[in-house]
Amino acid sequence: MPMINAGRLLSELRRFAQFGAYRTGVHRPTYSKEDMDSRRWLAQQYEAVGLQAHIDGVGNVFGVPRSERRSLLIGSHAESQNYAGWLDGALGVIYGLEIARTFAETPDCAGLPIAPVAWADEEGHYVSMLGSRSFVGDIDEAEIDRAVNVDDGLPLRNALRAAGLAGVPRSLLEPERYAGYLEAHIEQGDALEASIKRIGVVTSIVGLWQYSIVFHGIQNHAGTTRMAIRKDAGVAAATLAMAIAERFPEVAGPCSVWTTGRITLEPGAPSIIPGRAEMLFQFWDSAMSVLERLDSLLRELVEQTAIKTGCRAQIERTETGKPCHMDPAFQEAIESAAARYAPDVYVRMPSGASHDAQVVAHKLKSAMLFVPSIGGISHYWTENTSDADLVLGCQVLADAAEAILRGEGNT
Amino acid sequence: MPMINAGRLLSELRRFAQFGAYRTGVHRPTYSKEDMDSRRWLAQQYEAVGLQAHIDGVGNVFGVPRSERRSLLIGSHAESQNYAGWLDGALGVIYGLEIARTFAETPDCAGLPIAPVAWADEEGHYVSMLGSRSFVGDIDEAEIDRAVNVDDGLPLRNALRAAGLAGVPRSLLEPERYAGYLEAHIEQGDALEASIKRIGVVTSIVGLWQYSIVFHGIQNHAGTTRMAIRKDAGVAAATLAMAIAERFPEVAGPCSVWTTGRITLEPGAPSIIPGRAEMLFQFWDSAMSVLERLDSLLRELVEQTAIKTGCRAQIERTETGKPCHMDPAFQEAIESAAARYAPDVYVRMPSGASHDAQVVAHKLKSAMLFVPSIGGISHYWTENTSDADLVLGCQVLADAAEAILRGEGNT
Repeated sequence: MPMINAGRLLSELRRFAQFGAYRTGVHRPTYSKEDMDSRRWLAQQYEAVGLQAHIDGVGNVFGVPRSERRSLLIGSHAESQNYAGWLDGALGVIYGLEIARTFAETPDCAGLPIAPVAWADEEGHYVSMLGSRSFVGDIDEAEIDRAVNVDDGLPLRNALRAAGLAGVPRSLLEPERYAGYLEAHIEQGDALEASIKRIGVVTSIVGLWQYSIVFHGIQNHAGTTRMAIRKDAGVAAATLAMAIAERFPEVAGPCSVWTTGRITLEPGAPSIIPGRAEMLFQFWDSAMSVLERLDSLLRELVEQTAIKTGCRAQIERTETGKPCHMDPAFQEAIESAAARYAPDVYVRMPSGASHDAQVVAHKLKSAMLFVPSIGGISHYWTENTSDADLVLGCQVLADAAEAILRGEGNT
Repeated sequence: MPMINAGRLLSELRRFAQFGAYRTGVHRPTYSKEDMDSRRWLAQQYEAVGLQAHIDGVGNVFGVPRSERRSLLIGSHAESQNYAGWLDGALGVIYGLEIARTFAETPDCAGLPIAPVAWADEEGHYVSMLGSRSFVGDIDEAEIDRAVNVDDGLPLRNALRAAGLAGVPRSLLEPERYAGYLEAHIEQGDALEASIKRIGVVTSIVGLWQYSIVFHGIQNHAGTTRMAIRKDAGVAAATLAMAIAERFPEVAGPCSVWTTGRITLEPGAPSIIPGRAEMLFQFWDSAMSVLERLDSLLRELVEQTAIKTGCRAQIERTETGKPCHMDPAFQEAIESAAARYAPDVYVRMPSGASHDAQVVAHKLKSAMLFVPSIGGISHYWTENTSDADLVLGCQVLADAAEAILRGEGNT
């Protein structure tokens, strides 16, 4: 049985959080100096376990076992959201490293090849899930050419060049080399905590549909333009936001969520009626039919808002994530391990967030394990998980990995 | 009778629009290179008319008559809003220059001293009405120390130093030296155009009350946080905006206007529930009682929104402009001149926008003249006025200036 080293796991998680440390969290955007330092550090650790380490052309870090047998990919993404938590992504990456180390040290596991991986830009500083999408062949050079940073608009190509990745080949998945993919992650919600559970066995990952909605009004002086003749794009945006708040519950599923993450009024000056308003809006659900219903209602509300406010409206769907189901046998393996170490405190649950696993799952059997988020908080620097849960999650994932690889015939 | 030179007026207006030319408008923020170039150019023109020109410590440009008699200040502000129109401010500045030239050239007006002036930062890139407020003694060094650029947050002191104004004294009004102040401006609304009038005789300037309203919610992951437990600061901002749209008409006066010019959601990322929302909100009216009613209602709606959305709210009033009445005799002088050149197409009207005249009016008799804005458009690069109206406005103002100065006993 692989028994992880709890002290080493916790100290490596804390070591990794020093790359871009911010208050008790991290600020480690993709391809920043801190991000690339963290990736080079990972590659060194992979090498030290006896793996062939390399960083590919989009920054994915691979530890490739020197074995002919089918290996198990275990990992997550290494970068963080801006000024966010220390565990989002990092948890699954360090679990992969710890499990590779544990298997290498455990005589009866030494023949079971673990391939730790750290994906790049799951958080979408440039392109959501860039690393895993590149690995499964779901992105071409043209899309990389077009991509820019969401915050400053600078080209992805510039960032890759600055990170020393220009001209480095992108690694492409050869499916026959892998038994599958496991990813651990913090839950990022409060379902585990609220139900006093410690391990979530992920059944499916919800789909995210995202939109850019623009209203065009008439920009004018805010003191001299009579209310009656205004076409205020900002009022249109607020009108739509409230229509969504009122009408979405009518067609939403029980787990649907929706959010306006950004509203930009132009020119954004105190004494000017906004001539243009842009909303960044998204919703998530695990059922395709619900996603489609929400899409129809959104388009209807945008149209009604345009008529009501006299502003011209544009709506563009920028992401159309399909809900994705995890491999049943892999779920079983995680659940059996959880039953051993945490009887009665594990639960099957959907993932409300996107993860690299939903990309990899199109090509490899995949599954995910969640540990609790204290207070349900994530994407914020106060994000945390108890040490006991951090250790438990890694041990359960190690046991599941062993079961999966032995099931492969790797006895 | 002073007869202005129409060709010279139009060509100097166009010359002035070359400082920071942007499409058919201008981009000439206060203390930018273009703005300071335009001020130095003005000072040269003032000198050439025989005036003592100087630029004071906040960038105000004065042309001081070499006369012991009480002179008439005529001007407006020289800088523009960002990427805005060519006439806002510039019109009144070039009228002042043209009238000074005309009087200098007209034998029977040569003894009537015109003091052209170009104020700084009426548009509030740093401090609204900075130049005129400084002139009337309504701003101290501490406020200048604290002031920063509204766009980039850089200190006003840095801008003054870069513009070569550090250590230059600020000119203070000596009221006994002036007969009063006249300011011409584009209307910035569509009232003149809609009623087929060509000259507006301003009766009063509305008061502007401005607010920063902040909602504090709980920042969290937009995919995993159930709708039921959210405290979304962005939803609070939209809720307040709609409550204002619904309830303000109940207590507003017939000419009240209100605008949310900016909404900032933080952190402003697609998959994060906004934890903080800031709204820049303002309203204008010419009656103090209406302004006070709108203030009370706004505070009530902010409180209701906080309760409804579970977000904590803060409201701060950042500007409390008092409505201001123009001098009756000066209004009479403008109206008499308008009756001569534009019978039946002039009208008395309030100003819906703020102007330096409302600051100067606390210390000197003041009045304003409006010319039409085509389509009511201003604070935008398409802002314009017909050549015929540009010429008419200047001639009317020149005649009014003569009448005022002769009324002073300057025969």
